[in-house]
Amino acid sequence: MKNNCFTRRNMIAFASAAAGLTLVPLQTFARVSTAGKIEKDPKHKKIGIVLFDGFETLDVFGPVQMWGRLKDYEVVTVCQNGNVARSSQGLETGCRYSFDNAPQFEILMVPGGAGTREQVNNSTMLDFLRHQNRATEWTTSVCTGAALLAKAGILDDHKATTNKNAWTWVTNHSKLVKWQPRARWVFDGKYVTSSGVSAGTDMALALVEQIYGKEIAQQTARFAEYVWSGDSTNDPFAITVK
Amino acid sequence: MKNNCFTRRNMIAFASAAAGLTLVPLQTFARVSTAGKIEKDPKHKKIGIVLFDGFETLDVFGPVQMWGRLKDYEVVTVCQNGNVARSSQGLETGCRYSFDNAPQFEILMVPGGAGTREQVNNSTMLDFLRHQNRATEWTTSVCTGAALLAKAGILDDHKATTNKNAWTWVTNHSKLVKWQPRARWVFDGKYVTSSGVSAGTDMALALVEQIYGKEIAQQTARFAEYVWSGDSTNDPFAITVK
Repeated sequence: MKNNCFTRRNMIAFASAAAGLTLVPLQTFARVSTAGKIEKDPKHKKIGIVLFDGFETLDVFGPVQMWGRLKDYEVVTVCQNGNVARSSQGLETGCRYSFDNAPQFEILMVPGGAGTREQVNNSTMLDFLRHQNRATEWTTSVCTGAALLAKAGILDDHKATTNKNAWTWVTNHSKLVKWQPRARWVFDGKYVTSSGVSAGTDMALALVEQIYGKEIAQQTARFAEYVWSGDSTNDPFAITVK
Repeated sequence: MKNNCFTRRNMIAFASAAAGLTLVPLQTFARVSTAGKIEKDPKHKKIGIVLFDGFETLDVFGPVQMWGRLKDYEVVTVCQNGNVARSSQGLETGCRYSFDNAPQFEILMVPGGAGTREQVNNSTMLDFLRHQNRATEWTTSVCTGAALLAKAGILDDHKATTNKNAWTWVTNHSKLVKWQPRARWVFDGKYVTSSGVSAGTDMALALVEQIYGKEIAQQTARFAEYVWSGDSTNDPFAITVK
């Protein structure tokens, strides 16, 4: 499948441009040499989405929508066995990399979902997150994905947030994290965490703003006819923690 | 993979329930008989999501998020060859059915994306949509997916809407459709169409409301920490058509 990606992906790019749908800089593409080998991808940075069985659908695909057209970044998926992962909603997504052959990602994203209950006890997963986190530019999570980062010790001494419906379960994984119960998303250094499910889409746009500025973030939202408040303190699902 | 779905899916259901994440009725599951064969799924209704290369990510996965926990419906994917489809954002989703072996779906959903430019000229796709539409309870589209329904003649004489950034291209596929330039989504009989990308998530919740009532729709939105206006006339991306 990879050998014909040049043709297929450029066809889509052409169609998209022809339809006037391109509001943010279109990605550049992997090139296939005359020998049929894929040459170095000119999108030199990678956003690695960590998948596992039982990930929550929108945790992953809201951010993928918003990050999928950035000019310098390619969105790729990684899971332990490098095969496929089935979401809580039952659909299967292909994993481009396994934990063994994944490159260093510039942006790491850990989604939530019911499957995190199993993954917090998966030492291979926690080791992979720690290994990646050493050299990321940004380490991010959506929803209960924060439980995996917390359990791995990655969020220690940092401010972070998570799903408000699963607050007690997540926050019990580390008392060293400065958990924020009122926040749609939280930036602290290179760590960016979001509240539940849909909040990941807002966090993803906030990261686009951080990297490319407000105008590109707003263009990205408009392209998707997405209503983005842009305000991390606007959290309709905030809770009061005693 | 199908043979072990009982184990994997129930594990996720158990974990989800244990974490207190279940706000809407949990799905029941396919059962594997002692002979290892999958027995009739007690979720007797199917929501068929039509995939093709170049589908827009959130067109599909916003609705999948909202429809993925309904008690009577299973969300399944279908594409022409029954293999995988690659989104405009580059991730691959598995197709459970091909056009040849797909069952009749109770709800049909056609997403948009740059790939629709090719699909409007794919007579096999248009025939499949016409064939399914004869017996659906609901036929729906997101974004430029309306172009495929319109080209197939399915929306003739009905009110419908589509992506505002691609308005002229889509609406030129049928002058018999009563196109609505100011609408987040439109119901007309069994036809439900939405504006661009993110609007599909709102349409999906509106259909949940139509089938199960407002309380279940609001629970579904709250579970995903999703801000849903519930008002189809609230369309921040409406355009004026001369």
